[in-house]
Amino acid sequence: MKIFNKITIIGVGLIGGSIGLAVKKRHLADVVCGVGRRVSSLKMAKAKGAVDIATLDLETSIKGADLVIIATPISLIPQYALKIVTLSHMMRKGLIITDVGSTKAFIVSKLEAILPKWIHFVGGHPFAGSEKNGVVNSSADLFVGAKTFLTPTRKTDKSALANLRRFWMAIGSEVVIISPKKHDKLVAALSHGPHITAAALVNSIDKKDIKFASMGFLDTTRIAAGDPLMWRDICLSNPDNIVKAIKKLEKKLTALSKAIRDKDTKVLMQHLEAAKEDREKIK
Amino acid sequence: MKIFNKITIIGVGLIGGSIGLAVKKRHLADVVCGVGRRVSSLKMAKAKGAVDIATLDLETSIKGADLVIIATPISLIPQYALKIVTLSHMMRKGLIITDVGSTKAFIVSKLEAILPKWIHFVGGHPFAGSEKNGVVNSSADLFVGAKTFLTPTRKTDKSALANLRRFWMAIGSEVVIISPKKHDKLVAALSHGPHITAAALVNSIDKKDIKFASMGFLDTTRIAAGDPLMWRDICLSNPDNIVKAIKKLEKKLTALSKAIRDKDTKVLMQHLEAAKEDREKIK
Repeated sequence: MKIFNKITIIGVGLIGGSIGLAVKKRHLADVVCGVGRRVSSLKMAKAKGAVDIATLDLETSIKGADLVIIATPISLIPQYALKIVTLSHMMRKGLIITDVGSTKAFIVSKLEAILPKWIHFVGGHPFAGSEKNGVVNSSADLFVGAKTFLTPTRKTDKSALANLRRFWMAIGSEVVIISPKKHDKLVAALSHGPHITAAALVNSIDKKDIKFASMGFLDTTRIAAGDPLMWRDICLSNPDNIVKAIKKLEKKLTALSKAIRDKDTKVLMQHLEAAKEDREKIK
Repeated sequence: MKIFNKITIIGVGLIGGSIGLAVKKRHLADVVCGVGRRVSSLKMAKAKGAVDIATLDLETSIKGADLVIIATPISLIPQYALKIVTLSHMMRKGLIITDVGSTKAFIVSKLEAILPKWIHFVGGHPFAGSEKNGVVNSSADLFVGAKTFLTPTRKTDKSALANLRRFWMAIGSEVVIISPKKHDKLVAALSHGPHITAAALVNSIDKKDIKFASMGFLDTTRIAAGDPLMWRDICLSNPDNIVKAIKKLEKKLTALSKAIRDKDTKVLMQHLEAAKEDREKIK
């Protein structure tokens, strides 16, 4: 079920590699071209069948593409957009560009400023991933059942949005259309704040004690093993929302701590029961 | 490899049921007798093969036992110890009593005060479990690879400790001998604090947003679905250590939040890298 002729994936890590595998498995494009900075990742992407063509050269990779997915770390996305502009003469009119960055307001405003109007940019964020990075961990079904956020603005081309929506649905995602601002607030609460919390939790344990950790601790802190550079980028591009999410958590923590200290069984049970009830709503 | 003739398990929930299954699978006793308050749990324990005999009558269950394991919620443990004392005439001399409560200082001091000297009490805590409760979720291998804490004091009979250690090792546990006080501090950091954190995290999310949760949030908050009554008991019997553990976490959270707000890349990276490094030390 072909949707695009040529898809170019810039950055073949966990997400870029998984998109490539997902596209190939479902025959959504004639050609998938992977471009990146590391020969080893490109070689592995080719070996895994995530891309048909692997190249270090952006110009070659973009030629003739009708969908370009920037799947690099957040901090590199604007740079790639700038490079793409210099290659405008190589590109098809109506080319769709999207990204997979975990924050959207910063990226969308940057890219809308950088890219010419005839390139159709739509911000995106597949809400999937793992504490394990790299194309080595990529999977054709990483997005199955996961939500993918698309974050249009008033400037977004409607037909490009519809095509991209169809694309993400074809690789198994449930697509959620949301504004960049609302997206960033939502994922600060559900992902960025929890990541910072998991890191703080690990850091709060005496080093000599960590070897006694049991399953509960392992689950609760699993995401703290994520790539620090990726999380640094996320924090720096969504700081206000993350700080607010942490503040909300701190309030709940303080209330629970007070109830425990005061042996206030009623308040303690209210918090524990509310948490159980809400947690059980999701699987 | 028989270690005891008759083992009595008071309370056949997840832990009690799993001990029964583990004993039967490994032939560690001639008879396992389960006693409890709910006929449905006792019936299921019998049906699952976790116990040979299921009864509502403590007196019958204890007669002739050489190991009694109190696997009830923490708040009921002292009551059962008091009942056991009134049945002293039914018991073998040298009977070993242990428990599986998640906190130890409170329970050990209570039970050492209640039980006569000729009953050998040793506090215990298998550091295993799940957010899923009840004998229905019990498993013969729940303790395989898990740590079990035994918390002797100066009053503890050495031979009883050695036998109990052998028992827990036989069902797959790694046994850690530790004082009740040190135990409570350790598990406050590694289990009780993280549980409270997971609950606070769930409670900090706007109700309408929780349906967007992805895998990271699910992992981080899984334990928040645990039994509120069990966690209430834990909190009320280990409050000081839990409050201290939360305070340590709050300090780390505040530092991270400050680094994010100030866009202090260096400090942010220090925290994220330290968390990744320590988290990767455990599997």
